[in-house]
Amino acid sequence: MEWTRAARYRAYDQYSALELMKLQAQATASPAQLHYHIRPQSGLLNDPNGFSYFNGEWTVFYQSFPFGAAHGLKSWVRLSSPDLVHWTNHGVAVLPDSDFDSHGAYSGSAHEVDGKLFLMYTGNHRDADWTRTPYQLGAWLDQDGRVTKLAQPLIDQPETVTEHFRDPQLFFHGDRWYALLGAQRATDQRGEMLLYSAPAVTGPWTAVGPIKLPLADLGYMVECPNLISVDGVPTFVFCPQGLPQAAASYQNIYPNMYLQGKDFDYQAATLEGAGELTNLDEGFDVYASQTFNAPDGTAYLISWVGLPDMAYPTDEQNWANCLSQVKELHQVDGQLVQQPVAAMTSLRQEEHRFAGEVETITPDGGQQLELAVTIAANQQGTLYLAASVDRKQSVQLRFDTAAGELVIDRATSGPQPTPDHGTTRTLKLPAKADLKLRLFLDHSLAEVFVNDGRQVATFRYFTSQENTALAFDRPTTASGSWWQLADQNQ
Amino acid sequence: MEWTRAARYRAYDQYSALELMKLQAQATASPAQLHYHIRPQSGLLNDPNGFSYFNGEWTVFYQSFPFGAAHGLKSWVRLSSPDLVHWTNHGVAVLPDSDFDSHGAYSGSAHEVDGKLFLMYTGNHRDADWTRTPYQLGAWLDQDGRVTKLAQPLIDQPETVTEHFRDPQLFFHGDRWYALLGAQRATDQRGEMLLYSAPAVTGPWTAVGPIKLPLADLGYMVECPNLISVDGVPTFVFCPQGLPQAAASYQNIYPNMYLQGKDFDYQAATLEGAGELTNLDEGFDVYASQTFNAPDGTAYLISWVGLPDMAYPTDEQNWANCLSQVKELHQVDGQLVQQPVAAMTSLRQEEHRFAGEVETITPDGGQQLELAVTIAANQQGTLYLAASVDRKQSVQLRFDTAAGELVIDRATSGPQPTPDHGTTRTLKLPAKADLKLRLFLDHSLAEVFVNDGRQVATFRYFTSQENTALAFDRPTTASGSWWQLADQNQ
Repeated sequence: MEWTRAARYRAYDQYSALELMKLQAQATASPAQLHYHIRPQSGLLNDPNGFSYFNGEWTVFYQSFPFGAAHGLKSWVRLSSPDLVHWTNHGVAVLPDSDFDSHGAYSGSAHEVDGKLFLMYTGNHRDADWTRTPYQLGAWLDQDGRVTKLAQPLIDQPETVTEHFRDPQLFFHGDRWYALLGAQRATDQRGEMLLYSAPAVTGPWTAVGPIKLPLADLGYMVECPNLISVDGVPTFVFCPQGLPQAAASYQNIYPNMYLQGKDFDYQAATLEGAGELTNLDEGFDVYASQTFNAPDGTAYLISWVGLPDMAYPTDEQNWANCLSQVKELHQVDGQLVQQPVAAMTSLRQEEHRFAGEVETITPDGGQQLELAVTIAANQQGTLYLAASVDRKQSVQLRFDTAAGELVIDRATSGPQPTPDHGTTRTLKLPAKADLKLRLFLDHSLAEVFVNDGRQVATFRYFTSQENTALAFDRPTTASGSWWQLADQNQ
Repeated sequence: MEWTRAARYRAYDQYSALELMKLQAQATASPAQLHYHIRPQSGLLNDPNGFSYFNGEWTVFYQSFPFGAAHGLKSWVRLSSPDLVHWTNHGVAVLPDSDFDSHGAYSGSAHEVDGKLFLMYTGNHRDADWTRTPYQLGAWLDQDGRVTKLAQPLIDQPETVTEHFRDPQLFFHGDRWYALLGAQRATDQRGEMLLYSAPAVTGPWTAVGPIKLPLADLGYMVECPNLISVDGVPTFVFCPQGLPQAAASYQNIYPNMYLQGKDFDYQAATLEGAGELTNLDEGFDVYASQTFNAPDGTAYLISWVGLPDMAYPTDEQNWANCLSQVKELHQVDGQLVQQPVAAMTSLRQEEHRFAGEVETITPDGGQQLELAVTIAANQQGTLYLAASVDRKQSVQLRFDTAAGELVIDRATSGPQPTPDHGTTRTLKLPAKADLKLRLFLDHSLAEVFVNDGRQVATFRYFTSQENTALAFDRPTTASGSWWQLADQNQ
């Protein structure tokens, strides 16, 4: 179907139950469908929202358009979990049903306040002439799952920014609440992050000012900004759209970057002692990552696996995208590392060990598995994931543990997302060193943790589910284990 | 809400997507929800339908009313599986959208014919004055999941029966197709099974006659009749509503019975050398079981866990019922036994063994588990399932392995289905013998296989998910293992 403006903005109650049931069946039966990640029941999923700890459970929402693989009228769908791995889907939580969010309940965040979860998000409103006004809105989620929206916006669009003003990250520091927003400056249409603060989540919210970073240009818009503490290190995670390649090299259509510093001055909104702007994920498909500090201080991260302005092969099955697994963030040797959460091991089925000169790890492991492997130093070769019997179809991980390089190549894995932003990604590794990988496959999603999470590469691939081998291209000195992984219901 | 006739028979496209999403979220988040059994995505599930092997996969459908815990307008929802344990939900397959099935696509069966699956089912039609006419209908499911209904009924209601004429079981024997139907005789309003045959599935279908059994009275209606071969033994599985207790003792509102014989004469429709009419399941909640002989001859059985004219505690969450796990049927020592299929072990997580004088098997095993236990002979005691810390809330299995008795008591497990047909079921066991149980819990469903499936007891229970203990009431000589079980997505 053609996604006309009218079709994309039709109210949810103007679709029939029968249409939705057909879309859900199509998504569920899709061979590419995820079995242990958060995925749309139908239609399109994008940004994670409201990632938080509330009422003794982990909570996350996602941006949802349930009626097709299109960026139509967005709502928030809520999930909860005891362990960050097993999620229960509670359905639509924030509907675009007020004047302020009439054209979409866009992204935002959440924080527990006095036994309720406060949601802060962007209402997307368009006038009859299609002029957009973004409102920063508030809502309360109670312990019974009921959402009550505040009657008035928390923050109106300031004159200093264009209509691109969104994605509030809410957090508490010292004795005040803060909200970090992505924006486009009105004067020069360049991207920036704006900090607001308030004595209470419901306001009054006042501008602290733009975040001051030692970066000349953040592109034309910053989406999904986050400021967290990673083991005490202030860390910005954000999506600077149109970032100049001179600022940091990236290959995806839009980057998801992080920047750490020595200290963050809340009064001056200044990151002091900033390091280098760095790609958060070395794969093809991570965007709009959301992070927060849990009550015990630990930083967790979850990402949209998908990108704006991209088409994916499942679009023709009327569904698209998923969320990444949750990662725990730490500083190790002065560097940010991303690790699977502890409960990911609860999905493991029978362990299969291997060691020595290994060629075929398994001919028929399927595409719902975890692999933990150490490839000895000073070797070249290819590790095939989701490989056909003749190895001609696969995701290739080409490693050189002498020179220190890992190339991820999905060119031979099947249909590609469009537009094409390259079919390989290259990771620099320590030279002449063992390479340690922890790798997850979920039918059309790969997540590769490199050297204990010093680098992570997350990406979709779309190959036949009959391609079930996990193998090297030649005898390779390696050891490790693999496990098939259990489903997790939503 | 009140389920008026108008509400129950509203067309599916007259419900909004938003209503359905809310119902699905409510069902998914229900603490009682099943995690590895076939369950409704929303609303009410009843009879399994079309249980078959097609296109290299196992297929089952279920009767569905997606809009609440009511017997409203029924459709067929289709699932497929490689192993009879992991199912993929393909959504609504047979909609009540023709004149012949205008008031429900009621139960039926399926058989592969020349690369397509032929569905034979009962169309429920009502006139403006609400007079019912049942039609036996045909439809083809192709390998792409498309359903094409035949234009005309296969069998019209004969004058010898009332409006109660339904649930065709289709099977092939010799060189002809047969259909076994449940019916109520017009002359005396008593139940019977009618056999039809045809040279092709599409007809012409002609009456062979009523099945002749050595039973005086099958009650007022027989529902869901099946004739299968269990290791060569002709076996009827059926639901004789209103069966006199003199014919066979039962406690459920309606019984699900089986009857085996030495031979079945297809020409005379006579079961020769019939044994005793026997309860198929010793639990509280099995009905409408459907069986078929797979291409290799093995008989498989799946049941509705739920009963007509009963209310269940989840009704107030707008969903009800589930299907049982699939069972493999065999003759052992001249007796029908029911066993879990082999792939059920694929759900097992880490094994926990126990042996000796056992009291608490696990204090926190949860309610998604399998237990295999042998209780030594000549002991009395209670095995608590889904038990609270103080053991006051639990499902009780009271055993006496001296006298030979097992009492299943759900009185202390929480809210009960209504009307109350007793809170205990008693199984006779061999005296002075070890008792071997293989037992599955799935949050609100228990399936107990007794002595290698010589008896099976299937039942729902509705207790807090915080009741996570599995324990004896006293030190008991026993040995075995338990496993938490993985989710299976649908």
